[in-house]
Amino acid sequence: MSLVYGHHAVAAQLKTDGDRARVLYVQKGRREARTATLLEDARALGVRIETVERRWLDQRCDGSHQGVALDCHAVRLANDAELVARLPEFGPAPLLLVLDEITDPRNLGACLRSAAAAGVDAVILPRRGGAPLNELAEKTAAGAVAELFLVEAANLARTLGMLQEAGIWIYGAADEGAVDWSSADLTGPVALVMGNEGTGLRALTRKHCDYLLRIPMQGGVSSLNVSVATGVLLFEAVRQRM
Amino acid sequence: MSLVYGHHAVAAQLKTDGDRARVLYVQKGRREARTATLLEDARALGVRIETVERRWLDQRCDGSHQGVALDCHAVRLANDAELVARLPEFGPAPLLLVLDEITDPRNLGACLRSAAAAGVDAVILPRRGGAPLNELAEKTAAGAVAELFLVEAANLARTLGMLQEAGIWIYGAADEGAVDWSSADLTGPVALVMGNEGTGLRALTRKHCDYLLRIPMQGGVSSLNVSVATGVLLFEAVRQRM
Repeated sequence: MSLVYGHHAVAAQLKTDGDRARVLYVQKGRREARTATLLEDARALGVRIETVERRWLDQRCDGSHQGVALDCHAVRLANDAELVARLPEFGPAPLLLVLDEITDPRNLGACLRSAAAAGVDAVILPRRGGAPLNELAEKTAAGAVAELFLVEAANLARTLGMLQEAGIWIYGAADEGAVDWSSADLTGPVALVMGNEGTGLRALTRKHCDYLLRIPMQGGVSSLNVSVATGVLLFEAVRQRM
Repeated sequence: MSLVYGHHAVAAQLKTDGDRARVLYVQKGRREARTATLLEDARALGVRIETVERRWLDQRCDGSHQGVALDCHAVRLANDAELVARLPEFGPAPLLLVLDEITDPRNLGACLRSAAAAGVDAVILPRRGGAPLNELAEKTAAGAVAELFLVEAANLARTLGMLQEAGIWIYGAADEGAVDWSSADLTGPVALVMGNEGTGLRALTRKHCDYLLRIPMQGGVSSLNVSVATGVLLFEAVRQRM
């Protein structure tokens, strides 16, 4: 289940399993007293709130939505503390993938599929701003979600800093990167950071990168699709580690 | 324009620019005399014919479709003879991409975007069986369609044989391939062949491959998304050629 709707169901989801909630959709112009309580609960959990037209909800919900719907991750993600606890198990040269605000669920799913295929130790997603790990993402991931250790970072910059302190090199992917993707040494402890489809890495994320990697483009093309770029970089790491 | 509908428009498209026509959709149970003429013209051009429900056409056509619609490539593709004429311009080590029955227009578009970014000399598509190069594919390709030399092969096996005679090595991508993708020498004249999303390379296509390349998978994942695999293989060729 990834979209929960109706007051009772949304309230229950927020109360019993709020960690998986990502976006609360509220119908425009319909703000009942019980909706105010939901908004409060959602805000307390850091859930994004969006106002939408009634038609938008009608199209997505199979039954009566009463003006509210909640988009949830299809699985529970681990937190920073669990990531830290797991780090020693990853061996001397962990390979991590950080997806910073990938907003298309298909791209998210394709990135996860490549991550599992490349044997990535953990995938880190930001708590806010990214696509929900919903059914479309899971379907595109083709079974990879169950194979991966998935972490949701409440504060991505802080998580990156924590990884650096643990001796992991942070490599961001950026069109204007200084290092050609295949001349970087990706055999050590590495976290690869991919940015948003349109705008790339956020400034704060970029500041935490030790190196910015570039995949050179020919023709008039300015960049690769983010899931393709993720695959190219992950399998360059796999190649170097073989 | 990629979907043409209504008897007059479909007939005109088939007569004046039939090379771009890919699939003729005909409404179930509606076979007028003038429809029979369209079917004849379409068959003569090798256009696939599909019978569909009226609702299907209603949803896709903005105006009166009169029971017929024609899906066309958004651009005209070159033919085998034009490919042969161009080969000498590609230099001593051309890099070609062959997409054998990729059926999802998004995947097709993402493959084309990567092909342009990798500086591929030509992309070869089969005349039958593949996704139409429609607006969705063009949008996903993010401008790459205009950058590429695109060829439509009437008989893909024959085109591959012709490339082999011209001294080009044919590398097919296959899960059970004998050669690891990064141990193959991709610096010479190379055509990389990618198969269908679900079923991979067709038997006849496979027979024309000099080598089958494998990208090793970890975890429980059986394969990469086809556009990701295309990117990984193309940029391995780019890396080796740098």
